[in-house]
Parts: sequence; structure tokens; C-alpha cells
Amino acid sequence: MSKDVKQAALDYHSVPTPGKIGISLTKPAETQYDLSLAYSPGVAEPVREIAKDPINAYKYTSKGNLVAVISNGSAILGLGDLGPLASKPVMEGKALLFKRFADLDSIDIEVDTQDSQEFIDTVKRISGTFGGINLEDIKAPECFEIERILIEECNIPIFHDDQHGTAIVTAAGMLNALEIQGKKIEDAKVVCLGAGSAAIACMRLLIALGARYENIYMIDRRGVIYPGREGLNKYKREFQNDTGARTLADAIDGADVFVGLSGPNLLSEDMLRSMAERPIVFACSNPDPEIRPELALAVRDDLIMATGRSDYPNQVNNVLGFPFIFRGALDVRATAINEEMKVAAVHAIRELAKEPVPEVVIEACGVGELSFGPGYIIPKPVDRRLLGAVAGAVARAAVDSGVALLPYPEHYPLS
Amino acid sequence: MSKDVKQAALDYHSVPTPGKIGISLTKPAETQYDLSLAYSPGVAEPVREIAKDPINAYKYTSKGNLVAVISNGSAILGLGDLGPLASKPVMEGKALLFKRFADLDSIDIEVDTQDSQEFIDTVKRISGTFGGINLEDIKAPECFEIERILIEECNIPIFHDDQHGTAIVTAAGMLNALEIQGKKIEDAKVVCLGAGSAAIACMRLLIALGARYENIYMIDRRGVIYPGREGLNKYKREFQNDTGARTLADAIDGADVFVGLSGPNLLSEDMLRSMAERPIVFACSNPDPEIRPELALAVRDDLIMATGRSDYPNQVNNVLGFPFIFRGALDVRATAINEEMKVAAVHAIRELAKEPVPEVVIEACGVGELSFGPGYIIPKPVDRRLLGAVAGAVARAAVDSGVALLPYPEHYPLS
Repeated sequence: MSKDVKQAALDYHSVPTPGKIGISLTKPAETQYDLSLAYSPGVAEPVREIAKDPINAYKYTSKGNLVAVISNGSAILGLGDLGPLASKPVMEGKALLFKRFADLDSIDIEVDTQDSQEFIDTVKRISGTFGGINLEDIKAPECFEIERILIEECNIPIFHDDQHGTAIVTAAGMLNALEIQGKKIEDAKVVCLGAGSAAIACMRLLIALGARYENIYMIDRRGVIYPGREGLNKYKREFQNDTGARTLADAIDGADVFVGLSGPNLLSEDMLRSMAERPIVFACSNPDPEIRPELALAVRDDLIMATGRSDYPNQVNNVLGFPFIFRGALDVRATAINEEMKVAAVHAIRELAKEPVPEVVIEACGVGELSFGPGYIIPKPVDRRLLGAVAGAVARAAVDSGVALLPYPEHYPLS
Repeated sequence: MSKDVKQAALDYHSVPTPGKIGISLTKPAETQYDLSLAYSPGVAEPVREIAKDPINAYKYTSKGNLVAVISNGSAILGLGDLGPLASKPVMEGKALLFKRFADLDSIDIEVDTQDSQEFIDTVKRISGTFGGINLEDIKAPECFEIERILIEECNIPIFHDDQHGTAIVTAAGMLNALEIQGKKIEDAKVVCLGAGSAAIACMRLLIALGARYENIYMIDRRGVIYPGREGLNKYKREFQNDTGARTLADAIDGADVFVGLSGPNLLSEDMLRSMAERPIVFACSNPDPEIRPELALAVRDDLIMATGRSDYPNQVNNVLGFPFIFRGALDVRATAINEEMKVAAVHAIRELAKEPVPEVVIEACGVGELSFGPGYIIPKPVDRRLLGAVAGAVARAAVDSGVALLPYPEHYPLS
């Protein structure tokens, strides 16, 4: 970022008031009568109704539209473990995105512990306050166990966005890229640079969509993950590959797909040249991708390329997923966000990229045109059709897979 | 409450949307540029600034204006232990009052545990999220230890409103009533019916203001608390009285002051007749007071009477305190709400009742006039001068007592 942009970001967060989210009242609270309904004595009535049947909390409180964004700050963006308080601007930012894109009320909670069990206990005990919980910026491998146990022990949707949000949007773009390149996911040789929570979730979702373990090469700081390598946790072992490839250069040779969730400039021109014909590169390190798009496209004109950046085509942006996934889940009061719902989100995002793009979206993006092809495999965040398409698909999948407590709403999806 | 009012309260909480509070955005979030500042990549800058110095959380996040209202639902209003979820309408109501009266952002958190240590651990771990914490509807005696430990272990204001909010407003009215009746607090014989958290806090604050232990009679379900009585916890023992009085009827004989924080219709006409001349009765059981004002004033025309109800004169209403106490504390970034600040709030509320009342307040209350005297010893909640008067006094006391991290603001108090 330039110095000007840095200062603009600090000003944005501090002027005229600190932060970027606040509380608003959704009911009148001016007169004595209003207050007698909102608080004592009137409030005793909804209290009694909820005491009779807990489900009434969805009827009389904001629970059902309220998503907590919860972190311990152990893996903030690409910045690492800076602690819970330093993560607050990110968590408030996520809450802002929930409101902006899906009109979900969302509040951040920073939990001051690096102990997984303490984190789980804390989140579980406050979980009744919310309709859903978005876990965020929790480091691997702890994040896997934390999410698994909270899903088991809470009866509201729990969703670690760094894993599943990233995976869903990546998979949506990947399926379109494979289609355009004329490749089948079942046969694609996939190199995944990075072995953190997002990388593992991405590869797991590609597997669920048809990719094969034996075709996947996952690479961490010490090289390709292979059977018997020292110090592998069980999450990495899931992706061990015994072909003999040991380095990124070994693995990338002849690969169809590169997924980068690692760091800047780690994919060289030579490596890109060694990939199979019609390759696919998702260089999602942010803000500096694993290879710069200008460079990559100069080396390989048969390439489809995506990044995490808004100033290049094909941005892999989680905001295409999480607001609408939670919207759909909460609208049918799903008790979880299961695999069926995640896959439904993938296909909804993917299919939307094939639809003609409204003029207003093209204008907002400041581009000449947007039509399905190598330069447009993923919808744009400003595309308001995402709400109806993704929330609708997720809600439908929740109902069909039996985790929804409400029927699929009439006149849904909204747009 | 009438059936109509009950239904109105349920409708208020459910139509057109469930609940009464939501999240709002305080910064622009429309364009791609806005979002690049609010979230990635711009958000990395405030993250880095907070990682450098935690105090910057007050500059770049909503922490400094954010009050959590936290309960485990173990003592909801007068309804008892109905659990955390059933307390949510009350906690959201409190959050609404913080916003409405003091423009503080406030969110409720319901903690699902009845174990004090688990509750403390949970609140402590999430406390960094907030600028202050209002504990609410936690039963005695656990509430005392919970508050004490949280105050010790957190560096933000922690305030159990059922105790101190009630005590502060009660004491403000009481000092005025004593003045009008020509009595000294040092000499007043005080009967306190009720021995819960509010009762104990009220008596402790009256002691701090000059009342004497030996003049106080605290009465629980088993009668007057006296030395050696079975099953007394240390909080009740603080108010044991060894005069030989055993019943309310014994104790009330010749009393100057009755404070009721108990249940409906427990103070009889005969008991009231036995009180000293020019008596003071605060019958705060809600919605049905310990004695009805019509009845009480018919029995004793030399009486000053207060209740918890808005439809009688002299309403003891916590909303005169907590919004402004937190406003003042947060505006100077106090690390606690100490005794000096509580006493400052008492005097600020008390003194405001002696000021001429603006016409707009009189109109809003639908009364002919309001001037300091037996029928007006406490300001009205609609009196917007409370914000400046109470927040100003509390902020000043915080600065003077050395718990404020910021100086007393220029152009303060605001009104």
C-alpha cells in the first residue's frame, strides 16, 4: 500500500469517530410508552415466552439475525499472531461486510486466550446470544479442532470463514476455469502452495467436488508433503503424496492447476512454463500474489489466472460467500452449515458468472465488458444478484439436507 | 399489566422484525474504495497500530464507545432464575436504553453458566472487546464475588447495575427526601425490606453517605437479620442488627425510612402508622409496590413516597444513572467506576431535582408542574439535562480520583 492509502485507512478508522460499526434501535424508543414496552414492565412478556419455549428467542429478540465474528487474533490476515485486540479492526470489518452485503446484524468478539479448550468453552457459553458464529483468523491446526468441537456442541451455524469461505469461492472459480480450459477436475494435477487452514479447506472441497488425492501436491515451508516426512500433523498428512516430488519445481512440472495461499512471488516464470497446456493459476497471496498477473500472462497466453486483488480480473474474494451463506442459513434457521450447503454455494456462485452481467455492475467495476471467459470466471462483489442466488441455494440445500428448522420461505430468494 | 399491554409488548418485540436493536455502519461502505479501507487491504494499518500499542484500539475501533450488557439470567427482573436465553429481551432492552439516553453503543451477551468461576473466566476473556461492562440480573450472593473479581482482573469499568445503579438513584432521592423532611441521614432509623443485591448495595451506599449500621434493619424472608441467625452469608452479616427486633413489625416501629426491594403489599397500613413522624417510604417492588401510594398517603399525610413506577410521582428508575455513569466513565477512559464516581452521580442526580424544570419535561410527563418538594425528589428520565449533569460529575470524579486515562474534556459536559 502507498503511504497515502495507509493514511486514508487510518483516517477512515478514526475520523470523525473511532471504528466503523455501531448499534441502532430498530423500534421506537422515544416516549414513556415506548420504553414501557421495550423495557420494564413490558419486557417481562417476551421473557416469559422464551422461558416457556427457547425457540421464541427467534421471535422476540435479534438473535435470529445476529452473527458474531469471533477471533483470538492468532492468525490475522497475512500479519500473523498479533493477539485478540489487534484483530478488532478486522473483525469489525467483517461485521461491516455482513451488514453491507446481506443486511445481517453482526458484532465482533475478541477472545483473549491462545488455549483451544478455553476458547471453545468461552465461545460455547456465549453462543446462545447469536444466530450464527463466524470464526475468523484463528491459526492452524488449532482452528480445525476448535471448529469441529463447536459445531458438535452448539446448535447454531458455526463457520470458519478462512477455511470454508475461501474454499467455496476458490472452488467456484476453479470449476469455471476448468470448464473453459476443457479439463476435468477428476484428472487435474493440482499443486497447492501453502498448507494452512485455507489451503487444507480448499483442497478438501476440491476433493468433495471430484478431485483426487493422488493428483494433489500440497507444499508447506519445507516442501512437498510426503508420507513419513517429519513433523506432519494429521491435517497435513491427509494430503501426503508419495510420487517422489519434493520441491515446488518438482511438483509444478506438468501441473494443470496451481493454487497459491502462501506468499509473494513464490511462483517463478520457469515454473509457470513447466505447467501443462492451458494451465490455471490462482495466486491468492494478498496483497502481493505468488506471481504478478502481467508477468504470468506474458509467459503463458493460454493461462487462466485469478488473484485476491480487486484491481485485476477474477478476484477470489470471500465476500462473495460468507454474507450470503449465513443469510441463507439463518433465513431457514439451519442448525449448521453442512457440506451440502457449501457445495450449493459453490455452484450458485459459479453459475452466476455465466449469466449476462447487468450494466450497473459493469459500470461499478469500471470495465468495458464482463462476459464469461478467461477474464471473468467469478462474479463481482458489487453484483447484488449474489444475495438471492447464493442465499437461495444455501437455504434450499439446508432444507433438502434436513438441517433447517423452517421451510424454504415463500418469495425467496430475495434480491 | 393488562392483557392489552402484554400483547402490545409482544408485538413491539416481534413486529415488523424480531428484537429491538441492530448493527449500523458508521462509515461509508458503498464503493470498492470504501471497502478497501474498511477491510482488506487497508484494515492492516489499524491492526499494526494496535499491535504496536493497545491503547490505539480506542482510536481505531468502536471499543471506547461500546458497553456490553452481560447476564447469566439467574435473577431476571422480579421473575427469578429463568436462564440466559430468557434474559435476552431484558439485556437488549438495557442496550437500547444505553443508546437512547447516552448514545453509547451497547450489545447484550448472555452467558450460559451458573458457575461463578466459569462466568468470570468467560467475561474476562471477552472483555477486551468492550469499553465497559454492565453486569445485569445475576443473583446474590454470587453477584458480589463475580463483580469483585472482574473489577480486579479487567482494566475497564465493570458495574453491576442491579446493585449500584439502584443504589445511586435510591440514594439521590433519599437525600432529598431526608432534606425535605428535616432529618439527618446520620440519625435516621432505616428499615430495608429485602436482602438481595440491590438492597445490600443500597444500604452500603447510604452508609457511605453517612447512615449508621446500628440504625439499619435489614429484613429477608426469615425476618430481621441479627447476629447468630442461621444461614447468613457474609453479605447479610454485614447488616446484622442486635437490637432484639425480629419482624418487620418490630423494626418499622418508629423508623424514619422504609426501603422496599422485596414484593407487593408487604407493608401494612398499621406498620406505616407506627413509623416516626414525617416518614419516608421507598416502595420499589415492581410493578406492585410494597404499599400502594394512594393507600399510604391516605394513612399518612406527612409521608414522602417513592416507587419504581412511572405512573406515580418520584419514580426510582435506574435509567437516571447507568447510561450517564458509563458515558462519563468512558469519556475520560476511566479504568473503573469507583466509589467517588458513584457518590458524584448521587449528588448530580440529587441536585438536578432542585433546579427549575424545563417546560418540555413537564409537558412530556403530562403533569401540571414539577418543583422540588415531596412530589418531586428525583428528576424525570425524559430530562435531557441528566446527560450533562451526571456524565459530567462522574467524569470529573474519575479524573479527580485518579482513575481516568484522559483529562477532563474541554466543552464538557455536553447536553
